[in-house]
Amino acid sequence: MKRRDFIKTAGASGLLAGSTVMAPAVHAKSKIKWKMVTTWPKNFPGLGTGANNLAKLITDMSGGRLKVKVYGAKELVPAFEVFDAVSRGTAQMGHGASYYWKGKSEAAQFFAAVPFGLTAQEMNAWLYHGDGMKLWQETYQPFGVIPAAAGNTGVQMAGWFNREINTVSDLNGLKMRIPGLGGEVLKRAGGTPVSLPGGEIFTSLKTGAIDATEWVGPYNDLAFGLHKAAKYYYYPGWHEPGTTLEALINQQAFNALPKDLQSIVSNACKVVNQDMLTEYTARNQMALDTLVNKHKVDLRKLPDKVLDKLKQLSHEVVNDVAAKDAMTKKVYQSFNKFNKQVSNWSAVSELAYLKVR
Amino acid sequence: MKRRDFIKTAGASGLLAGSTVMAPAVHAKSKIKWKMVTTWPKNFPGLGTGANNLAKLITDMSGGRLKVKVYGAKELVPAFEVFDAVSRGTAQMGHGASYYWKGKSEAAQFFAAVPFGLTAQEMNAWLYHGDGMKLWQETYQPFGVIPAAAGNTGVQMAGWFNREINTVSDLNGLKMRIPGLGGEVLKRAGGTPVSLPGGEIFTSLKTGAIDATEWVGPYNDLAFGLHKAAKYYYYPGWHEPGTTLEALINQQAFNALPKDLQSIVSNACKVVNQDMLTEYTARNQMALDTLVNKHKVDLRKLPDKVLDKLKQLSHEVVNDVAAKDAMTKKVYQSFNKFNKQVSNWSAVSELAYLKVR
Repeated sequence: MKRRDFIKTAGASGLLAGSTVMAPAVHAKSKIKWKMVTTWPKNFPGLGTGANNLAKLITDMSGGRLKVKVYGAKELVPAFEVFDAVSRGTAQMGHGASYYWKGKSEAAQFFAAVPFGLTAQEMNAWLYHGDGMKLWQETYQPFGVIPAAAGNTGVQMAGWFNREINTVSDLNGLKMRIPGLGGEVLKRAGGTPVSLPGGEIFTSLKTGAIDATEWVGPYNDLAFGLHKAAKYYYYPGWHEPGTTLEALINQQAFNALPKDLQSIVSNACKVVNQDMLTEYTARNQMALDTLVNKHKVDLRKLPDKVLDKLKQLSHEVVNDVAAKDAMTKKVYQSFNKFNKQVSNWSAVSELAYLKVR
Repeated sequence: MKRRDFIKTAGASGLLAGSTVMAPAVHAKSKIKWKMVTTWPKNFPGLGTGANNLAKLITDMSGGRLKVKVYGAKELVPAFEVFDAVSRGTAQMGHGASYYWKGKSEAAQFFAAVPFGLTAQEMNAWLYHGDGMKLWQETYQPFGVIPAAAGNTGVQMAGWFNREINTVSDLNGLKMRIPGLGGEVLKRAGGTPVSLPGGEIFTSLKTGAIDATEWVGPYNDLAFGLHKAAKYYYYPGWHEPGTTLEALINQQAFNALPKDLQSIVSNACKVVNQDMLTEYTARNQMALDTLVNKHKVDLRKLPDKVLDKLKQLSHEVVNDVAAKDAMTKKVYQSFNKFNKQVSNWSAVSELAYLKVR
């Protein structure tokens, strides 16, 4: 599959290269070529295809004046070197998630997902019409990288479990694949968070090397066949209630673009930000239907007492992270204030409505 | 203010008439000028500014090759003639809401807001990754108009009431400003729906000519000063759970554009679609805070029994509309199927999460 994709890609770009020669746009005949490195396997559903979509939008809207070629993880650089590659200018763009870069700044995590934090709609409100975007830019500025929100998974699932979770003590000794802040929360609840790349999850769960895993949501989980490796499918995804994916843009490369292409790049990110969320929403509902009605998956809500405990621990973990440096504290304070206020609004709008529908 | 706008407009359209003559479509330095007529007062917060934003995005991304000038309601044509103006080509674009055009097709209402229907996120999922957009295009195709989603208010408020609503019988004889399908539902519940333009709402409510009104949500309602005219502020907005605003594009004008400008126009609509929703989310939460904490507004949830009755009546009303013609039935069936499935997903994602946060 991957091989064939490579061949298709090669063929298509040859074709494009030929035809763009006779497609004049605005400025003389200058063509700019950018590379986009990503943290996803090439064409990974939702995330990788979102990156492809972003590249295509920029190419289309610019009439081919700015062509962006997408590289899957490991094709040009490994997944976790994407940030550095964009910072150095090895690639002009990247696509990933900001919580991968907490080594650069702890603050980065707030722009992806925070346990018991903002939903997709609220997150976008903070980014675009609160202080979020400004703070994100400030966080990446020392690295010569411009961030943009470029995708969202929506509320994720709590995950797949081979053990019933009825009380807080059932988390004790639970070996679960759960990265980032969520993993730290599990640890404080007595569990053992494990870091595993996507490709190793199924086997680890099937063989009992781990007791549980979170992944994304029905659409991606069904594709991975996780229902064949675990008994219980728990919700809601308290640890990632609306994970924002990001585009990274090399500052110098961006500055060198004419204004119209700068606008096209920035707005293409916005289009993908919305498009990915709506794709996940549409496909998750279909996949959930398949999982429950065809595969007879045991779908369960985490008990309120368990969620209450996880919430309390999440606040502790997030507070501790915020205390690490001045920038992270500033981001946390803005995020936290917005979270509190928008929760009041969501309670009388989305929540109140969904309850009665 | 309006007068000055008219003078500016007159000057600008003189200019337009001159320049469009020498504006062929494709060539390198050609400039194309489009008019966008809107159903909103010029610069109306959220809706009118969203239309301005759309025009600016197209102008910016095209580097001025396609310049769009916005006209408020009545500047070029009255609000409710926007569709016809775009259909005729008097203007190349329009901005409004599709439920205004039920005179053209009853099906149009499904692309704006349906009582007890889809939220913003779900609606976008149906439009972009379900059959929604295709059906919308089919509905407007006979008029030579291409639709695009171009804004969303999110879940609205049920409205401002000068009478407590404790039981279904309190709706009896209620004179309320509530247009469209929601108005029909109120009528079946024993109330009297009234149609009033925005500018007349405050006085009608203040003088007791009406007992209640819906408008949009805290951001727009606060600006109108509705808290000075009514005692109770009820939620949730069962009648408009995620109202989609629309861009209208004249088919011939669109077809005459080069491919890159077509892509810019379509994607600018997508950017505005997301941006307006996030603006409403951010501003509604601030305005709600002001209304409740500063103006001491009596914020209330409609009782469950009242909502249950309104839900039952809503289903009846929507069913009746769907029975009117084949196109409307086709749209209803797609909408309804998506609504049912996505409700299952929202129940374990957005709803389950918001409940425990």
